[in-house]
Amino acid sequence: MEEKVSLLENEAIDDLQLKGLHLIQKNAGFRFGVDAVLLADFANVKRKHKVIDICTGTGIVPFLLWGKYEPESVIGLEIQDDMVEMAERSVKLNKLQDKISFVHGDLKDKKLLSELGRYDVLTVNPPYKLNNAGIVNPDDKLAIARHEVLCNLEDVIASAKKLLKDNGRMYMVHRPERLIDIFELMRKYNIEPKRVKLIHPNSKKPPNIVLVEGQRDGGSFLKWEPSLYVYNEDGTYSDEINKIYGREE
Amino acid sequence: MEEKVSLLENEAIDDLQLKGLHLIQKNAGFRFGVDAVLLADFANVKRKHKVIDICTGTGIVPFLLWGKYEPESVIGLEIQDDMVEMAERSVKLNKLQDKISFVHGDLKDKKLLSELGRYDVLTVNPPYKLNNAGIVNPDDKLAIARHEVLCNLEDVIASAKKLLKDNGRMYMVHRPERLIDIFELMRKYNIEPKRVKLIHPNSKKPPNIVLVEGQRDGGSFLKWEPSLYVYNEDGTYSDEINKIYGREE
Repeated sequence: MEEKVSLLENEAIDDLQLKGLHLIQKNAGFRFGVDAVLLADFANVKRKHKVIDICTGTGIVPFLLWGKYEPESVIGLEIQDDMVEMAERSVKLNKLQDKISFVHGDLKDKKLLSELGRYDVLTVNPPYKLNNAGIVNPDDKLAIARHEVLCNLEDVIASAKKLLKDNGRMYMVHRPERLIDIFELMRKYNIEPKRVKLIHPNSKKPPNIVLVEGQRDGGSFLKWEPSLYVYNEDGTYSDEINKIYGREE
Repeated sequence: MEEKVSLLENEAIDDLQLKGLHLIQKNAGFRFGVDAVLLADFANVKRKHKVIDICTGTGIVPFLLWGKYEPESVIGLEIQDDMVEMAERSVKLNKLQDKISFVHGDLKDKKLLSELGRYDVLTVNPPYKLNNAGIVNPDDKLAIARHEVLCNLEDVIASAKKLLKDNGRMYMVHRPERLIDIFELMRKYNIEPKRVKLIHPNSKKPPNIVLVEGQRDGGSFLKWEPSLYVYNEDGTYSDEINKIYGREE
């Protein structure tokens, strides 16, 4: 049974269709999408792992990781305080207070990172749009989640280095256009890219999402996974995407 | 009509199925494969362009580029003297002495590079296997073509920088496992990766060939092409590969 939690205006409880888990989200505003689902599926998480999800937003990735892998613990780090407060109500709703927790803070805050300690696995679905001056209102919560307003790719990867144990793994979902920067910055911070998976809308179109696994102080060998195509040629969902969404039956 | 040229032992004349072009190759030894065909198709070559192909081997890429685009001139650079001699006989065979020429030399030779001048387009199908000590016999001609015995990826990209005009384009075919190194080294030598195309055996398998376009002093934006699948699910050649091989009719 779910615990009773209060909802604010314009909030709703969404069923994650995964072990009875539910998530509080805004009706308008930042709602989780396919990126979070793909990231949780791509990550290799074991029961003994301590996991941190940075740029966690509503907390969707921690809940999906918990639902899929039941790791020892998952912490979500988020800079927007109202998102953290909402994510904490989702924890209560799912009665997962001893497994999932959220921290309000800035991943550029070195003191905070050192207090948080080190993790076996780090996941991140960072803001992926370059913060082109003049386009983005820095008070816009949606903009903060999507554009590099409060942190950029280098901040994200630098913090990952600090938060990972030796040989710990980071999993990131991003855009293929940024793959050069991702590779370059991961190597700069001694996180060796080890595995890549490209997601295409269908087999005729270029990839529009990339998943990257990196290992702190890992040796260099890059493995490519088969690509994933979201839609079949007839416009129906592919078997692979149905499987990831748990719609295989 | 072809000019008469003499063939050495174990040599054969192969029909390139492209504007009547023919190429002399060894019956055993290094023969051109799909890499060269994909590279020639991926390159953007105009009639006004001066083109150089490094690590040219038998000269297959210069002949394919000539057949497809009829550029102003194509030079092939090759370190193995018997390959150069054979490629020169192919030039004679096709009566293309005023369009295609071959140079015997080492791409690490700075004086030679400076004598060669600068080009609009550079193509390269370099040795793509790491030269793991002990595995490769440095006298083995096939090994020289396939393994990084006489030049490595950095030598190739460093020479490309010297051989390209400002904003000139390089086109390389390589292995996806090396894409981090390719991106890193291209940026090191101010050749910005601009376009990537992955080749998969079929849509269920990971990519096993990558094509990369870089621009000397280019601005940073990476475009991903749709992937190419060599085989359909039923094992027949895909339409895309038939088109590249000129088998569309």
